[in-house]
Amino acid sequence: MLEDKNIPKTPIATLGEFALIETLTKSFEIKDSSTQFGIGDDAAVIQHGKDETLVSTDLLIEGVHFDLSYMPLKHLGYKAVMVNLSDIYAMNAVATQITVSIAVSNRFPLEALEEFYLGIHLACKNYKVDLVGGDTTSSTKGLMISVTAIGKASKDEIAFRNGAKEGNLVVVTGDLGAAYMGLQVLEREKAVFQVNPQSQPDLSEYSYCIERQLKPESRVDIKALLKDLEVKPTAMIDVSDGLSSEILHLSKASKLGCQIYEDKIPVDPEVLKSCEEFKINSTTAALNGGEDYELLFTIEQSDFEKIKGHPHLSIIGHMTEVASGYNMVTGLGQQIELTAQGWNGIENKEND
Amino acid sequence: MLEDKNIPKTPIATLGEFALIETLTKSFEIKDSSTQFGIGDDAAVIQHGKDETLVSTDLLIEGVHFDLSYMPLKHLGYKAVMVNLSDIYAMNAVATQITVSIAVSNRFPLEALEEFYLGIHLACKNYKVDLVGGDTTSSTKGLMISVTAIGKASKDEIAFRNGAKEGNLVVVTGDLGAAYMGLQVLEREKAVFQVNPQSQPDLSEYSYCIERQLKPESRVDIKALLKDLEVKPTAMIDVSDGLSSEILHLSKASKLGCQIYEDKIPVDPEVLKSCEEFKINSTTAALNGGEDYELLFTIEQSDFEKIKGHPHLSIIGHMTEVASGYNMVTGLGQQIELTAQGWNGIENKEND
Repeated sequence: MLEDKNIPKTPIATLGEFALIETLTKSFEIKDSSTQFGIGDDAAVIQHGKDETLVSTDLLIEGVHFDLSYMPLKHLGYKAVMVNLSDIYAMNAVATQITVSIAVSNRFPLEALEEFYLGIHLACKNYKVDLVGGDTTSSTKGLMISVTAIGKASKDEIAFRNGAKEGNLVVVTGDLGAAYMGLQVLEREKAVFQVNPQSQPDLSEYSYCIERQLKPESRVDIKALLKDLEVKPTAMIDVSDGLSSEILHLSKASKLGCQIYEDKIPVDPEVLKSCEEFKINSTTAALNGGEDYELLFTIEQSDFEKIKGHPHLSIIGHMTEVASGYNMVTGLGQQIELTAQGWNGIENKEND
Repeated sequence: MLEDKNIPKTPIATLGEFALIETLTKSFEIKDSSTQFGIGDDAAVIQHGKDETLVSTDLLIEGVHFDLSYMPLKHLGYKAVMVNLSDIYAMNAVATQITVSIAVSNRFPLEALEEFYLGIHLACKNYKVDLVGGDTTSSTKGLMISVTAIGKASKDEIAFRNGAKEGNLVVVTGDLGAAYMGLQVLEREKAVFQVNPQSQPDLSEYSYCIERQLKPESRVDIKALLKDLEVKPTAMIDVSDGLSSEILHLSKASKLGCQIYEDKIPVDPEVLKSCEEFKINSTTAALNGGEDYELLFTIEQSDFEKIKGHPHLSIIGHMTEVASGYNMVTGLGQQIELTAQGWNGIENKEND
């Protein structure tokens, strides 16, 4: 669970009242000018002037969303922030603050929480957001993490899911399916380790997939990139649950159908290779895998030339009238219906 | 757990994707004019114009913060909102929106979550706040609730904890200790019930204490009341962990000492009566009990006449230089040092 097994383990109960949170948060400095007051009062105070304020929140539960047997706590802290920032970026907005609440069982020593907060700190630094509050409490079992992200945008910049128009082009950033294949590799290694704890696997050939799973980045760059390209997204959503689920959300919110092309879905060569090894269809990984935290958005057809061939952006299809349904044309020219997969137990989000 | 044991129990897994959250939140209407967009996109959009935006968050864990054997889910939903609104009111601000995230194990049927959301809905209605987002997921064990409250206030209205001045009067709203005594009664009845499930206790003589524990209200009225009285609080905090802990927070943040008077601490007659029965010192209940969600604040001495004798406000002491420490003068004229009690396991809050 901890990267260095020899570091001291301080029971949390030995810390005085509020000393724990001071220990965990003392290295966080306020950097965003809109943060008037951060940690240390009943509430944080934020001034967003003329801009709109955006709020998104996520809950991550041990045993449901993450497995500490292969997820280092520092990476978990980083990823917990990414998941939330991604929701703010998916509104074509700028993230400015986060709050982080955790509930921990007494199996976690202080050093484990410090590792976790190192990841939070790195994410705040890399993405220029301020930690402004939270709650720290005990749990009867496991680790639970609740992050709320706050952002800002001018009214005319915000991209909702419901703004797509018929004929709009569908664009996705980066590539898809790698986080899912990273999970497959890690799950396999965990199973091997349980049988043979002496195994020393060489995972270097899966390094991209594993990094996408353990240390995802969110697309902070897209808002500025689109502005530079003079493209205004008509609708936008982040790809947290897999392309299929997200394009259905966007289509339904916009009261439209969609048609995408299997050949156009961006997939990294390492994903193709590991899919072959695991006997998983790479399109299935991209459509249903999730956790890629790329952005999916729609643009006017007239913006085609501005986007075409951009290394970070792939045009994968277009929006149709609602009666046409939600379709993908396969590499063999067949048309298949897209369905929301990845429904595993309950996993809903009011703002996701 | 459910008030009517005969209502149908729909397993959550039988609902389609996103149908759960639609079922739970469909009756929530947007009422606050600052809510531009609520549930249904990656993030909520809030416009706070010239006002400051305030954010506070709390995590409530089954088995740590609540016991469903005597806490009806509707009350739990209501209380979860109160805990957070109280933090916004403790900044002398107006609460405007909340997000609610829950993680539930599969022992909870849909009807249980609907009960919970009925309480959330009632709280939103009574306190005029909008539900604008959240996250709903499965847990491996029990129920976890994370609420984030958002509020607004003009810059000059906000009351931080650190604004108290030497000689300021210390004021508390309402009365203290009742929620704690309500908990004692409920814990005793639970123990009785475990021995004799046929027992039908008459709890009417504890009705105030039990209501304070199960259905607390937060002091939404105090900001307007103080404005009417033309009193500006110099510092403010809510009483969630007991008077002693809170006055220490306020004093330390303001770099001052304090002196309060045992005789002045407002305690309801029902609390006195039940304290006698339970052999608990009523001052201990008020100082260390917690969960009263009253407000503790400081005012200029010159405002004494405006506050004096007000039925909702009790002047309980004054702020001193830091070297004098944190003291209470008992009914017998002894001076004792106030210490932060109620430290039970870990229970910290960056913004609390």
